[in-house]
Amino acid sequence: MKNNKLIRILKEIKNSDISINEALNKLKMFPFEDIGYAKVDHHREIRNGSPEVIYCEGKTIEEIAGITEKMMEMNSNILATRANEDIYNHLKKVYPKAEYHPRARIITIKNVDLDKSRSKILVVTAGTSDIPVAEEAYITADFMGNQVEKLYDVGVAGLHRLLGNTDKLGDANVIIVVAGMEGALPSVVGGLVDVPVIGVPTSIGYGANFKGLSALLAMLNSCASGMGVVNIDNGFGAAYLADSIINQIEKAREN
Amino acid sequence: MKNNKLIRILKEIKNSDISINEALNKLKMFPFEDIGYAKVDHHREIRNGSPEVIYCEGKTIEEIAGITEKMMEMNSNILATRANEDIYNHLKKVYPKAEYHPRARIITIKNVDLDKSRSKILVVTAGTSDIPVAEEAYITADFMGNQVEKLYDVGVAGLHRLLGNTDKLGDANVIIVVAGMEGALPSVVGGLVDVPVIGVPTSIGYGANFKGLSALLAMLNSCASGMGVVNIDNGFGAAYLADSIINQIEKAREN
Amino acid sequence: MKNNKLIRILKEIKNSDISINEALNKLKMFPFEDIGYAKVDHHREIRNGSPEVIYCEGKTIEEIAGITEKMMEMNSNILATRANEDIYNHLKKVYPKAEYHPRARIITIKNVDLDKSRSKILVVTAGTSDIPVAEEAYITADFMGNQVEKLYDVGVAGLHRLLGNTDKLGDANVIIVVAGMEGALPSVVGGLVDVPVIGVPTSIGYGANFKGLSALLAMLNSCASGMGVVNIDNGFGAAYLADSIINQIEKAREN
Amino acid sequence: MKNNKLIRILKEIKNSDISINEALNKLKMFPFEDIGYAKVDHHREIRNGSPEVIYCEGKTIEEIAGITEKMMEMNSNILATRANEDIYNHLKKVYPKAEYHPRARIITIKNVDLDKSRSKILVVTAGTSDIPVAEEAYITADFMGNQVEKLYDVGVAGLHRLLGNTDKLGDANVIIVVAGMEGALPSVVGGLVDVPVIGVPTSIGYGANFKGLSALLAMLNSCASGMGVVNIDNGFGAAYLADSIINQIEKAREN
Amino acid sequence: MKNNKLIRILKEIKNSDISINEALNKLKMFPFEDIGYAKVDHHREIRNGSPEVIYCEGKTIEEIAGITEKMMEMNSNILATRANEDIYNHLKKVYPKAEYHPRARIITIKNVDLDKSRSKILVVTAGTSDIPVAEEAYITADFMGNQVEKLYDVGVAGLHRLLGNTDKLGDANVIIVVAGMEGALPSVVGGLVDVPVIGVPTSIGYGANFKGLSALLAMLNSCASGMGVVNIDNGFGAAYLADSIINQIEKAREN
Amino acid sequence: MKNNKLIRILKEIKNSDISINEALNKLKMFPFEDIGYAKVDHHREIRNGSPEVIYCEGKTIEEIAGITEKMMEMNSNILATRANEDIYNHLKKVYPKAEYHPRARIITIKNVDLDKSRSKILVVTAGTSDIPVAEEAYITADFMGNQVEKLYDVGVAGLHRLLGNTDKLGDANVIIVVAGMEGALPSVVGGLVDVPVIGVPTSIGYGANFKGLSALLAMLNSCASGMGVVNIDNGFGAAYLADSIINQIEKAREN
Amino acid sequence: MKNNKLIRILKEIKNSDISINEALNKLKMFPFEDIGYAKVDHHREIRNGSPEVIYCEGKTIEEIAGITEKMMEMNSNILATRANEDIYNHLKKVYPKAEYHPRARIITIKNVDLDKSRSKILVVTAGTSDIPVAEEAYITADFMGNQVEKLYDVGVAGLHRLLGNTDKLGDANVIIVVAGMEGALPSVVGGLVDVPVIGVPTSIGYGANFKGLSALLAMLNSCASGMGVVNIDNGFGAAYLADSIINQIEKAREN
Amino acid sequence: MKNNKLIRILKEIKNSDISINEALNKLKMFPFEDIGYAKVDHHREIRNGSPEVIYCEGKTIEEIAGITEKMMEMNSNILATRANEDIYNHLKKVYPKAEYHPRARIITIKNVDLDKSRSKILVVTAGTSDIPVAEEAYITADFMGNQVEKLYDVGVAGLHRLLGNTDKLGDANVIIVVAGMEGALPSVVGGLVDVPVIGVPTSIGYGANFKGLSALLAMLNSCASGMGVVNIDNGFGAAYLADSIINQIEKAREN
Repeated sequence: MKNNKLIRILKEIKNSDISINEALNKLKMFPFEDIGYAKVDHHREIRNGSPEVIYCEGKTIEEIAGITEKMMEMNSNILATRANEDIYNHLKKVYPKAEYHPRARIITIKNVDLDKSRSKILVVTAGTSDIPVAEEAYITADFMGNQVEKLYDVGVAGLHRLLGNTDKLGDANVIIVVAGMEGALPSVVGGLVDVPVIGVPTSIGYGANFKGLSALLAMLNSCASGMGVVNIDNGFGAAYLADSIINQIEKAREN
Repeated sequence: MKNNKLIRILKEIKNSDISINEALNKLKMFPFEDIGYAKVDHHREIRNGSPEVIYCEGKTIEEIAGITEKMMEMNSNILATRANEDIYNHLKKVYPKAEYHPRARIITIKNVDLDKSRSKILVVTAGTSDIPVAEEAYITADFMGNQVEKLYDVGVAGLHRLLGNTDKLGDANVIIVVAGMEGALPSVVGGLVDVPVIGVPTSIGYGANFKGLSALLAMLNSCASGMGVVNIDNGFGAAYLADSIINQIEKAREN
Repeated sequence: MKNNKLIRILKEIKNSDISINEALNKLKMFPFEDIGYAKVDHHREIRNGSPEVIYCEGKTIEEIAGITEKMMEMNSNILATRANEDIYNHLKKVYPKAEYHPRARIITIKNVDLDKSRSKILVVTAGTSDIPVAEEAYITADFMGNQVEKLYDVGVAGLHRLLGNTDKLGDANVIIVVAGMEGALPSVVGGLVDVPVIGVPTSIGYGANFKGLSALLAMLNSCASGMGVVNIDNGFGAAYLADSIINQIEKAREN
Repeated sequence: MKNNKLIRILKEIKNSDISINEALNKLKMFPFEDIGYAKVDHHREIRNGSPEVIYCEGKTIEEIAGITEKMMEMNSNILATRANEDIYNHLKKVYPKAEYHPRARIITIKNVDLDKSRSKILVVTAGTSDIPVAEEAYITADFMGNQVEKLYDVGVAGLHRLLGNTDKLGDANVIIVVAGMEGALPSVVGGLVDVPVIGVPTSIGYGANFKGLSALLAMLNSCASGMGVVNIDNGFGAAYLADSIINQIEKAREN
Repeated sequence: MKNNKLIRILKEIKNSDISINEALNKLKMFPFEDIGYAKVDHHREIRNGSPEVIYCEGKTIEEIAGITEKMMEMNSNILATRANEDIYNHLKKVYPKAEYHPRARIITIKNVDLDKSRSKILVVTAGTSDIPVAEEAYITADFMGNQVEKLYDVGVAGLHRLLGNTDKLGDANVIIVVAGMEGALPSVVGGLVDVPVIGVPTSIGYGANFKGLSALLAMLNSCASGMGVVNIDNGFGAAYLADSIINQIEKAREN
Repeated sequence: MKNNKLIRILKEIKNSDISINEALNKLKMFPFEDIGYAKVDHHREIRNGSPEVIYCEGKTIEEIAGITEKMMEMNSNILATRANEDIYNHLKKVYPKAEYHPRARIITIKNVDLDKSRSKILVVTAGTSDIPVAEEAYITADFMGNQVEKLYDVGVAGLHRLLGNTDKLGDANVIIVVAGMEGALPSVVGGLVDVPVIGVPTSIGYGANFKGLSALLAMLNSCASGMGVVNIDNGFGAAYLADSIINQIEKAREN
Repeated sequence: MKNNKLIRILKEIKNSDISINEALNKLKMFPFEDIGYAKVDHHREIRNGSPEVIYCEGKTIEEIAGITEKMMEMNSNILATRANEDIYNHLKKVYPKAEYHPRARIITIKNVDLDKSRSKILVVTAGTSDIPVAEEAYITADFMGNQVEKLYDVGVAGLHRLLGNTDKLGDANVIIVVAGMEGALPSVVGGLVDVPVIGVPTSIGYGANFKGLSALLAMLNSCASGMGVVNIDNGFGAAYLADSIINQIEKAREN
Repeated sequence: MKNNKLIRILKEIKNSDISINEALNKLKMFPFEDIGYAKVDHHREIRNGSPEVIYCEGKTIEEIAGITEKMMEMNSNILATRANEDIYNHLKKVYPKAEYHPRARIITIKNVDLDKSRSKILVVTAGTSDIPVAEEAYITADFMGNQVEKLYDVGVAGLHRLLGNTDKLGDANVIIVVAGMEGALPSVVGGLVDVPVIGVPTSIGYGANFKGLSALLAMLNSCASGMGVVNIDNGFGAAYLADSIINQIEKAREN
């Protein structure tokens, strides 16, 4: 179970659990570290094993290495997204524990072991070409300590493939549906289940797909009420949202 | 059965069925009539009962009346789309046979009776709000001499409604699927049948629907191969395309 | 607690809880009712009190009345969104229990009483002009049996208004953030809490706001990972998603 | 002649041609095969020779090879679109029957011979630069067993080139018109013939062409009623739609 | 024949036709008049009869009346575009010579008679609904002293209507082609003639027409080289451009 | 002086200058030649020296060579746009007269000498980066037999550069203004002169330039009435339009 | 001269000018008042006379009245933008000092007199139709205590109108340039002066203007470096930015 | 302190400080130099040390070298933006003083030393990936003689990083805020300070970011009134605008 960040401190003030002086000092001490080009945030619930995340795109290898170093000093679990082989090779030399997941384009370094959640996340794709985005979601959700399953290539043009897998749908507490092209799969899944559905449009397709716009608009306009949509190709974001839902469920279980 | 327009004459020249002189004269005589603000086209296969069509939007009632008059002189069947009550009342006074179909916003004047096609068109909608566009397609296809059936409100968020009507899907030779919002229904229908599917996106929805753009893009990007898409809210166009397909089928039957 | 729809039946087959014959019959009997222009879905877990929903836009008053009648026969709770005073007056005459929530543009008819959830939803707005959309979310979530709180007019240009209300943020299990214009509030809230955040872009603004596009894109691109976004002005959808998350939490509590 | 897929089985249940038990088993046995990253669909009417289709973009060579292998085991005809020389070389080694059509970017493997349809498809292009898309349509339609003809480079800025080929237009049962830039050719062709016209916008052009948007919008707004439009550069989809129309015609011929 | 504005004065300086002092004074005296909310420009070649133009949209009746008054003092010909009946009635009381052209939404006040040009402008429309825009072009071009002809309702879906009017096309020195929907007519006309063609997209159409965008993009991407395009619905601008071309031709004639 | 294409023949029929038989034969003989992948048009007024044009983008070198060969047989002047060094080297070997203009990306082969027009075209650019597009216009206009001048790098942010060159503006009969970024220069030039102005938006710029969209929209919305706009980066089209205007002027001079 | 808001308090903590306890209390006391539907912000530097601002669009008259009442209790100057006659009449009854500026659509209530700034703001428009937006800027800037001048209707198509007013341009410390259509005026003004230029695109225009998009893009892409752009039609925002610049200048003057 | 450009001369005429003859001569002599492909502007206040600016994109190395040479002859400070290593190496050989700032992609050549301004510019970024754009702003502002500070990686998802740096915010006279993705940071900063804020959207992000559109729209729609926005990734423009504001402040200080 995770707990609230900044809020926690602010509430302690409120509840007089700490003096105002202590509070402000805590705030000042709030765990981020200034390394010039980046303010490394150590507040991502280290004790709970939630990983520190580095979004690699637009950063130099030197910057990524520098941020990683600071995080390793805190003994955090580390998840680097949109990474490539070069970055991996660079980090692997210094941190032998580093692993690369090429389809997901993710590097992970595990310093702390986590218990798996009892609740379950299911990652579904419409087609084979959507798999890289789905893998980004899968690896992220798994690395954050969730129990995750996959159901790939069950797009709406062949309904029997989906209907032949109702078991998996029925067992999940949160379902991430990854689809490009017309992005219809989340609507169909949303009509079959009652659990939260997270739609991830992908940029798979061509022409009037406009790099994922068609799938994005389809999901935002879904007639299956109550779907949450994330950015195009944002498998990581979907997993992060799913994880925050699972956290609430696990917390309730424990109480 | 209908036959080709300009082509027919041009081929007669080619095949020496008529002299070149005759051909050119025929071309000159080709049935359109200049009434100043409009060139009324009498070449829409009058003998076959295919209706003359007036698109009312952007035309004054006077213009519509003038065009209708010319068509009535040819004893054509007349179909006026995007019409309103005012236009109808105006025409009804002069032509008692005129009928108004308010949901479809169509006025029809039947001067010639037609045999119904043996092949069948099915008009499907995702929701109740898509019905006006579907009715435009239904009335048009029916008035052009086709056998037409309806299957309304079977959107993808409640698959059982669609799967409970597989009979109707299986009986059709051409299926027109009308859907707004995420426009997913044609993809699902396209995955269930082998006959030509015509997708009609509607402007039903709001926000990121962008007046039908979401449904339009979804249909153009459908993973169910081989769907033909028409303009947003263009029920008439879908019926016209379906009719041209049915014509080919009926022609084959007769041979 | 709610349970899965179609899935449940399909799993009973799987587990041999029912014979295949029974299963198929159940599927056939699956509760929807064909009233011509609409297939009324009675499967929305009637015994659990989840309301039947009518989206009023694009439907005639007659259609809405017809659908309501069928639902009343099932003694369902009914929620009609995007409704207006006219529809309300029409329904009120027949069903005196009908209530109108003008800012939310929602009509509710309560036939069954529900226990409130122990988990809590918080509805936040950036500005006063976003309130109608927030109220659609509030009324919906409340009517579905959730404990809901409000925190309105705490936009990012006056951070102290938000920071002065950290209590409310800290107490929620799911937070719905409604914002127009630059749509920045969900990102800031997402950075302060660990619970799932649902972003609702509104069409509030003008010019380069392009009817909510600016807020929509901002939320989809949020640097605060793990936000689920719904359609522009879609307060209902946000509440529905929040409700499905709360259901999972409540279910875990009960176990 | 081809027959309906899922529908057929579902109708057999309905008509008591098979027991419900048999039906469900059939559905379960429904020919798709799970190879992990893909659910290979063997239901594409194997006995009729309709090819299995692999859309190569976004798939690794290994995935394509794996899918091909499963299909070859079924002795299917195979059509791989958006393929490149590398994929071809990889497949050619294993399947010597594989052929590459470089302009169409299609690989075909023919395992079953097909009779040609009596009905005819005509593929027309506006310019020379539209030929690759047209070839994708041509190869696909031909490989699916249709009689296909070509009429290339007859764009509207030189009407005499089109008018000098009225024979070909007049002989076709379905016409696929491929055009980039202003996308006007389908409108002109649609005005000359009565058969179904399928418009394929291409991304040929520059500047305000916006990668095919100009041609796409032009075709969707065509004043020549009853044109079906497919996605930008989607020659395959056009051929597939044409094929489904031809199938209906051929079926009628046989009856 | 008209002559250059500011340029003329600047060249007189250059050629020492006038002293620099005179030039600067002339520039200062350059005929515009400041009436507070508007700087009325009297430099529109008063002696040549070219009209002063008032674009009425977004101006109050008072402002239009004030600007007209200043122009009348100069005895100019006056052309007010995007005008309505109210503005006309207001002006008519004061200036009995004022005339209203309702379809073109233009008010004209003729104070000076003009010789007609020997060169000819032809205004062509695709449909009847495009006539209001065409009339704006026609009235403007006519009022500026040009010989103008009309050819309406000759869209590309009925080529024979256009091909039956080649005389008119052949007689024009400049052709203005007005078309909505797919905007294909200017391309076809451009392929038939060698004279300058001005394309005017109209907002006629619906759905994916996006208020004239489809026609605009089509004309900008025309495969018929050398077409000049003006803004959507900008009949006035097309006439103004045509007039400037005719002026060059007439000037050449006189030399 | 050039004369009309198809029109001329059609008018000869009309005026009985030729018999209908002769006319149709002429039409049949109309000079285009079918070389399979292209219909080479020889009707571009060979005797007048107007060049045959090949748009190279999207064509293979073989196709370009084939088209060139057919044109060389007619002894035409040839202009190949959007060409590169490779195409040039290929053609140069066969046709030593071929010349390459690298900035304009044009290959020219001159077989016929032309008299220069007396009227003058001026090509203006806003910045240095707009020069490649301007050169495409310059080389084209020059090669078509027009007298052309240049005025480069006189953008609106330094008005004195433009105002210091009023001579050149004043001497032109047609002005082509090439501008990227905010595309304001044509409006300013249009306010200084009375001759036809042709606006060519370029894709120069970045960010919210959206590949030329900003300049394109600016020119279409110019407050300087009567500008004709061509496609983004379409220097060739601008020159072609300018040439058609000059032709009309020259014709008038000769009469 | 104004001073920083939240910052000031936070710096006092830092500099130990106040104890941390005092600081937090101050923060808590920070002047906003919760009236349910709005958090009224009294921190807009009341003592300096800067007005409290109410954006009226999307608020009910009751809400506006409620917010005004709270502000009047603080004796603030009040500026209500996007207001209409109805709101004015409502407020006027209660607060006789209320004044309405109809073209600017602004209501002002002056409770405190302000000294005028010595620095000067100039508001420039391209056309007469841009005046309403310019007036919003003018009234706002004036009411905030700035010295403001106007220069209206000096668009780029008549450069002499602008060049004849160089005095006014030269005297300003900040220039707000309001322009619709092609939005070129800020670029030209920016090339003539060295002071900060604020571009305000307006939605004036039609067709490819797309409600101000053309002017907005033009200003963002201006070749005149260093222009700040605000939202379409956002006269208020431009004035607010100009005011913040003037504040810095005035502060420097005083030191 | 800088002074006005063209304006100064025009005012001298007005005030009779110089005769009209002198004025015109001055204008003629106005320092730009025609080197064929470019008009080099020497009027950028050489004596004040403001640099001459070369925008390298779309220019050949030869052109850049030629322009540099002319500028060096005037002994100007030179700033070349969007430069690369190649250009730098080319210039470095000739001008050893040339320096390259790789992240900012700027080459500087300092010929004149400048006093630093007393007023201060602060450059803020939301993330590490925004640094290249921020550096373009930083180097430019610094090179123009301004005192500049940096505050990087303080995005809104971790508010404490921003709130922990209120000192820097409070010390600045102008703040440049660089942000991609949802572009929310300028709104938050704008709510914390009273000084002018310049928003620079970056193209950092992916998917529905649409190359910076999301951040751009967010900034244009900011609820924090009075922000000036520049083009996407336009660090240079932001610095230039900041510099023009600082100039006004410094001028006021000196008086």
